[in-house]
Amino acid sequence: MRMLYHTHLSPFCRKIRMLMKEKGLEFELVCENPWDRNLSLFALNPAGEVPVLVEENGTVVSGTYAIAEYLEETYPQITLIGTTPGERAEVRRIVDWFDHKFDFEVTQKVLFEKVFKNYFGAGAPDSKAIRDGKNQMMYHLDYIGYLANERYFLAGDNLTLADICAAAHLSALDYLGDVPWDYNAAAHNWYALMKSRPSMRCILIERVRGVRPPVYYENPDF
Amino acid sequence: MRMLYHTHLSPFCRKIRMLMKEKGLEFELVCENPWDRNLSLFALNPAGEVPVLVEENGTVVSGTYAIAEYLEETYPQITLIGTTPGERAEVRRIVDWFDHKFDFEVTQKVLFEKVFKNYFGAGAPDSKAIRDGKNQMMYHLDYIGYLANERYFLAGDNLTLADICAAAHLSALDYLGDVPWDYNAAAHNWYALMKSRPSMRCILIERVRGVRPPVYYENPDF
Repeated sequence: MRMLYHTHLSPFCRKIRMLMKEKGLEFELVCENPWDRNLSLFALNPAGEVPVLVEENGTVVSGTYAIAEYLEETYPQITLIGTTPGERAEVRRIVDWFDHKFDFEVTQKVLFEKVFKNYFGAGAPDSKAIRDGKNQMMYHLDYIGYLANERYFLAGDNLTLADICAAAHLSALDYLGDVPWDYNAAAHNWYALMKSRPSMRCILIERVRGVRPPVYYENPDF
Repeated sequence: MRMLYHTHLSPFCRKIRMLMKEKGLEFELVCENPWDRNLSLFALNPAGEVPVLVEENGTVVSGTYAIAEYLEETYPQITLIGTTPGERAEVRRIVDWFDHKFDFEVTQKVLFEKVFKNYFGAGAPDSKAIRDGKNQMMYHLDYIGYLANERYFLAGDNLTLADICAAAHLSALDYLGDVPWDYNAAAHNWYALMKSRPSMRCILIERVRGVRPPVYYENPDF
């Protein structure tokens, strides 16, 4: 059976899980927390990070970039990175926006400080960083709203990896109740659409020990 | 004429420049510094970041991830992301290592603090971060050495985007004299091989105002 090594609340793992669900690929989840520094994880991925995909034939693919491109190339029946070079460049531009820019400006500051920093034993949360990350989230919500108004989905008229990637990051922050959904109606409506997809519902039913999400977290009508 | 918007010393821009040279693609460089916050850059790339590629037919491709994949798909005559799914996954794993892990653990801490922080008017360099980044560089050099010993080039027997990406990051740090080349002989030899490539020489001849590189910076025999 195909296996995905992941950890809870990681946007990068959520992205790959949603991508595989959207492509109709069966897989088993194996929880592997990078802060446990298990040698078995380093044997699979020398970076000691998740996600890691292990195919039934033994092929190992490590990291969100390599896995997403591998899945698109190997299982092209359902296309999620666009079809023309222009479409593909646009999907990847937005994926990069969320996996780099949003991650650096928001996810690392809010999610890492509030949750993962403790797991890694890296000290107390930095409240200035959390405040800063939450402030920066506003203009990202505006940008999502702008794209969703122009295009229905973020990179065009169809669902792509760009939507999956953005929703994965926001869902992890939303678990902490840190996304001000009232701030931008178009971003709110786009996320409601994403929440109603079966690929996302599988993720939203999960709970992390000791942290309870807000009551609206799972509800597509929020 | 094809144009690449770039800024000096950016590893991400250096990577795309080297990739285009290795693929034999002609282009003109346009210097565009993100800290100037020019509206013309935001019009091309809403992230306000470089690199941005503008093709002669007007196609705009933004960001290192989208540009690298676009070039590989559009100009496949010289392949630099491997041929089989397994090879491609390995190239992308290593690219991700340098563009994310190395960037986060080393480049951001040393290059950003020493050079770009001042350009962005973001305060004085954080000497603890610089020290920390330099310390973390050691295990990355060990990893490069390990791969180079096993494989000739980092992702296999041929030059790929993995080598280009690693060399781009290291070359920017080397400009500041911050790479301890004596530390790992195999990493040193691999970098000497990279330095002798014409794609890299075009980058090494550049100088940034006010910062002089070490005397060995350009020399493949160092």
